[in-house]
Amino acid sequence: MGRSAAADRVVLGIGDDCSILRAATGDEILVTTDFSLEGVHFRREWHPAGSVGHRCLARGLSDIAAMGGEPMAAFVSLALPATLPQRWVDGFYQGVLKLAAQFKVELAGGDTAQSPAGILADIVVIGSAPKGAAIRRSGARPGDRIFVTGTLGGAAATLDLLYSNESKKLTPKKYPSHFFPIPQIQFGQVLRQQKFASSMIDTSDGLSTDLAHICEESGVGAEIWESAIPLGKIGRPPRAVDPAFALHGGEDYQLLFTSRASVHMPRTIAGVQVTEIGRITRGTGTLLQRSSGKKSKLKPDGWQHFKKSR
Amino acid sequence: MGRSAAADRVVLGIGDDCSILRAATGDEILVTTDFSLEGVHFRREWHPAGSVGHRCLARGLSDIAAMGGEPMAAFVSLALPATLPQRWVDGFYQGVLKLAAQFKVELAGGDTAQSPAGILADIVVIGSAPKGAAIRRSGARPGDRIFVTGTLGGAAATLDLLYSNESKKLTPKKYPSHFFPIPQIQFGQVLRQQKFASSMIDTSDGLSTDLAHICEESGVGAEIWESAIPLGKIGRPPRAVDPAFALHGGEDYQLLFTSRASVHMPRTIAGVQVTEIGRITRGTGTLLQRSSGKKSKLKPDGWQHFKKSR
Repeated sequence: MGRSAAADRVVLGIGDDCSILRAATGDEILVTTDFSLEGVHFRREWHPAGSVGHRCLARGLSDIAAMGGEPMAAFVSLALPATLPQRWVDGFYQGVLKLAAQFKVELAGGDTAQSPAGILADIVVIGSAPKGAAIRRSGARPGDRIFVTGTLGGAAATLDLLYSNESKKLTPKKYPSHFFPIPQIQFGQVLRQQKFASSMIDTSDGLSTDLAHICEESGVGAEIWESAIPLGKIGRPPRAVDPAFALHGGEDYQLLFTSRASVHMPRTIAGVQVTEIGRITRGTGTLLQRSSGKKSKLKPDGWQHFKKSR
Repeated sequence: MGRSAAADRVVLGIGDDCSILRAATGDEILVTTDFSLEGVHFRREWHPAGSVGHRCLARGLSDIAAMGGEPMAAFVSLALPATLPQRWVDGFYQGVLKLAAQFKVELAGGDTAQSPAGILADIVVIGSAPKGAAIRRSGARPGDRIFVTGTLGGAAATLDLLYSNESKKLTPKKYPSHFFPIPQIQFGQVLRQQKFASSMIDTSDGLSTDLAHICEESGVGAEIWESAIPLGKIGRPPRAVDPAFALHGGEDYQLLFTSRASVHMPRTIAGVQVTEIGRITRGTGTLLQRSSGKKSKLKPDGWQHFKKSR
């Protein structure tokens, strides 16, 4: 079954009371909504407008990816300060539209308003998946293997750099994992089609927190092997991030998923590296096995956006 | 065909990367999103938290009503100042949930964040309508009759009172059209089922502006009879509002629609009063026929939220 064109899914876009979407017969509808707030999720002096738009849409697309879904349409609501230059708004939409085009997602609506303070964006992405096929957080069982796509910690380590060098701007293209993260849409769809995953979440809040969500929803525990976690690399020349960022740093928008032990997992899927990082266990809570072999509790200590400053 | 229970439409609510909705076979999906911003759409000193929540959801439901759709689920994203009392948040959700229950709409998700300034809410409502049946703004033709539900101007006249008596609070239950407007969901569905309407919009921006939207999307003009416009009544004892509020004041969330001349329009539909207020004409622009018989151009002068103060 081929992917339908955006035009087949968006029957009516901007310009009426509602947009009208059409899903394939029997498909279920996926809905996700996320704020991107100035000073909380981005700063104008750190993030070019195009990066803000890109990250805004990437957050929503990543939630669709985490269900193994196909994105149908995006809706961006923007509240803007009266003093904001039009150039910024244009740059923002360029960032949104470029990423949207990459995944054949139509920008089908939204709202605009004047903001009392700062730039406020709310992204809604509507997607679809065949009935009963969306991959939930709740399907992990003891004995399942735990996997993650790509590498972790790059986005948070970059943010840490921004904090530690407040006066110095970073060049976005040297730090793509933070400024231009790519949601794992295709990967998620293959997992869903192949029935490889028993549960899935995206790493928007950080491994320790997102794994805790899977454990909580599934009623299980987990054990993670620190030495197995694929560390992100940032800057030029690229250097590996501190493991703490990979354990707790968010906004990488990778996929964290579990698989029955019987599944033969490829090393790459849809061109994306897959790494086994642990096991689902009975009981509750997550243990971290250090490189020394010593085990300790892994507390959910997920990324609080810009927590240092607030 | 009976209305399905909320549980049949929301397969998976809050607690995963996405919510999962299920529409009836062959239905199209309606999506609407609207901001409600403190200082722009409401003021904490004027609007009780329950009214803010109610109005927030009413805005979204009214957009579904304006397509003749059936609401499936609502998503409320809230960014809140750190200092906001929990009591306010509880009151807000009570307002949302009470209205949601009235229309059997499940609150199926959303996002929360800390706001840098003021309360920011974004409401998303997902609805459905049979394929091709949603009523658009673009279907009006010359000769069509123009109708409106209920009465107009009550919400804007109340807001005007709030401005003119800044020190004095109004008692919300004496001014329900402003504090607790009821979206015309059932009315819209009957129009769609009976194929009574050739075009429709809700009066969120005010008659003159919303009629201009219909004319623009349909490529037609219009003539409105001032003496026919049903004026809202506010306060106790109730008194009729100034016609200017009915012509230009927004947020009444009534339905403005057109119908072919051949349709026999009932005086009430689903218990709601229907009033004929004019005709669709050839050409562009809207003429207002005054009570004196004199005709003048009706400029779109829709309600700008809280425009006096900004």
